[in-house]
Amino acid sequence: MNDNVTVCEVGPRDGLQMAKTRMRTDDKIRWVQALAAAGLPEIEVGSFVPARVIPQMADTAEVVRAARGLPTLVVALAPNLKGAQLAAEAGARRISVPVSVSEGHSRANTNRSTAEAIAEVRRICAWVKESGVSLEVEGALSTAFGCSIDGVVPERRVVEVAAALVAAGANMVALADTVGYAHPAQIRSMVRAVRAEVGGRLEGLHLHDTMGLGLANALAGLEEGVRAFDSSLAGLGGCPYAPGASGNIVTEDLVFMLESMGMHTGIDIPQLLEARAILAEALPDEQRHGGLARAGLPRTFRAAA
Amino acid sequence: MNDNVTVCEVGPRDGLQMAKTRMRTDDKIRWVQALAAAGLPEIEVGSFVPARVIPQMADTAEVVRAARGLPTLVVALAPNLKGAQLAAEAGARRISVPVSVSEGHSRANTNRSTAEAIAEVRRICAWVKESGVSLEVEGALSTAFGCSIDGVVPERRVVEVAAALVAAGANMVALADTVGYAHPAQIRSMVRAVRAEVGGRLEGLHLHDTMGLGLANALAGLEEGVRAFDSSLAGLGGCPYAPGASGNIVTEDLVFMLESMGMHTGIDIPQLLEARAILAEALPDEQRHGGLARAGLPRTFRAAA
Repeated sequence: MNDNVTVCEVGPRDGLQMAKTRMRTDDKIRWVQALAAAGLPEIEVGSFVPARVIPQMADTAEVVRAARGLPTLVVALAPNLKGAQLAAEAGARRISVPVSVSEGHSRANTNRSTAEAIAEVRRICAWVKESGVSLEVEGALSTAFGCSIDGVVPERRVVEVAAALVAAGANMVALADTVGYAHPAQIRSMVRAVRAEVGGRLEGLHLHDTMGLGLANALAGLEEGVRAFDSSLAGLGGCPYAPGASGNIVTEDLVFMLESMGMHTGIDIPQLLEARAILAEALPDEQRHGGLARAGLPRTFRAAA
Repeated sequence: MNDNVTVCEVGPRDGLQMAKTRMRTDDKIRWVQALAAAGLPEIEVGSFVPARVIPQMADTAEVVRAARGLPTLVVALAPNLKGAQLAAEAGARRISVPVSVSEGHSRANTNRSTAEAIAEVRRICAWVKESGVSLEVEGALSTAFGCSIDGVVPERRVVEVAAALVAAGANMVALADTVGYAHPAQIRSMVRAVRAEVGGRLEGLHLHDTMGLGLANALAGLEEGVRAFDSSLAGLGGCPYAPGASGNIVTEDLVFMLESMGMHTGIDIPQLLEARAILAEALPDEQRHGGLARAGLPRTFRAAA
């Protein structure tokens, strides 16, 4: 079994879009630089959405341009063809296109149906092919483990949407536990079902720590062979409707778990912990989560050699 | 595979001994009553240690007496024969006797060697047999996954101590991640090694959430067939040397994970969540942890039928 795991830091996108205040562009760039220096192989640096929708993301093109020389794969969220074109123009190497499996979330989040979102991915992939730009397209299946609007999301529906995204031309798909409803048995079952349909096109998991199960869910995915996880430094993010709720799984704790278990992430944990200082300075009002940062690396820890 | 899991609430013991203030005896009793009413099958209600050592535990006999009529197994910590006798006299059904696998922790915690602690378990078990009291004796292997004083704790040493405790007459042994250093691969390996030596006498895991890995570690244990876990309501507890650090794994989140996965705990989650109000009133200065309490039960949750 391959013991290399790719951690994609999504804090500058998923963490900041919920932040009470806007992070300054130069702070974002410093943060992304520190993450790349710590060895993060992939960083989702922002989102190409209209500034009136998410003002925190208005400077994404500038952050992408600043990041593209760094030794990390620069990812950006793009909900549509326009966003994909802006991402490519700025120099992103991959875009993540959110496609909600549940219709309720799809409507609420992007005012379109799931089928319309899949059609948009098809349009984007066709444009990438025609234009010859070097841009990977990831279909990110939101609400794949349940939806706070529609409730249960059937596994077969997730499999259908994953297959449709691959058919539409997506290079890869990821399963997102957008609202943090997943549990480990569900992760295992879903990963198996989706992989049975799309094989290696299932790339990774995007998990939230809403119920405290985030790392247990990551472990379940890992044990099913998943080797790519999104996470956020200090678990930045949260939910406006759940005060104190954590956002994504905490990058530091995830990396600590993986390295402790003998997996290889290529990430330097002390440097990663130091990068939290940028958040403390730039966003002093945001809650910073994480066990490792509170307790420090255990005496027994040896990073996998 | 057996899908019944026994959750033992240890908050009134492990949670309170670290508390900044003392919980009043009547509040402790209300809390234990609420836990039993929520369906907790086992509750560790206190510790028979000298009041000068841990003042928070001075009223343990009174709490045990109040709890013994409840529909739950009343457990108490007892570090020595004297404590065991007091526990039996008060009406505890089981005692947990801490035995540190690492000599450094053993000396620091109880001023005796590991061998002396094992000898004490032997003395306790001999007394139980002679006196004919109805009292189960659990050997709790502290620092089984690493020690903040001695560092790495070799697996073979844990196996030796577990075997010695069973030979000394302990009805069961539990493995405690006292300082929260464990990771999932280590849990799996340790459970296998100890079970190979003592079989079904390995009863459960006592986990802390220091690094955020608590539920991932519980999952690893569950997947190795462990069916008993200690936890603490609201993750009460912590470490005086790690401000903000969590104590034991959070009972509510653990039960939510288990029930979501189709395991049976016999615990009513809404009632369990209500019991947090007692902590909020009785110990307003203690930090209460837990994802489920912040976010609420997901729409998709159905307790295992």
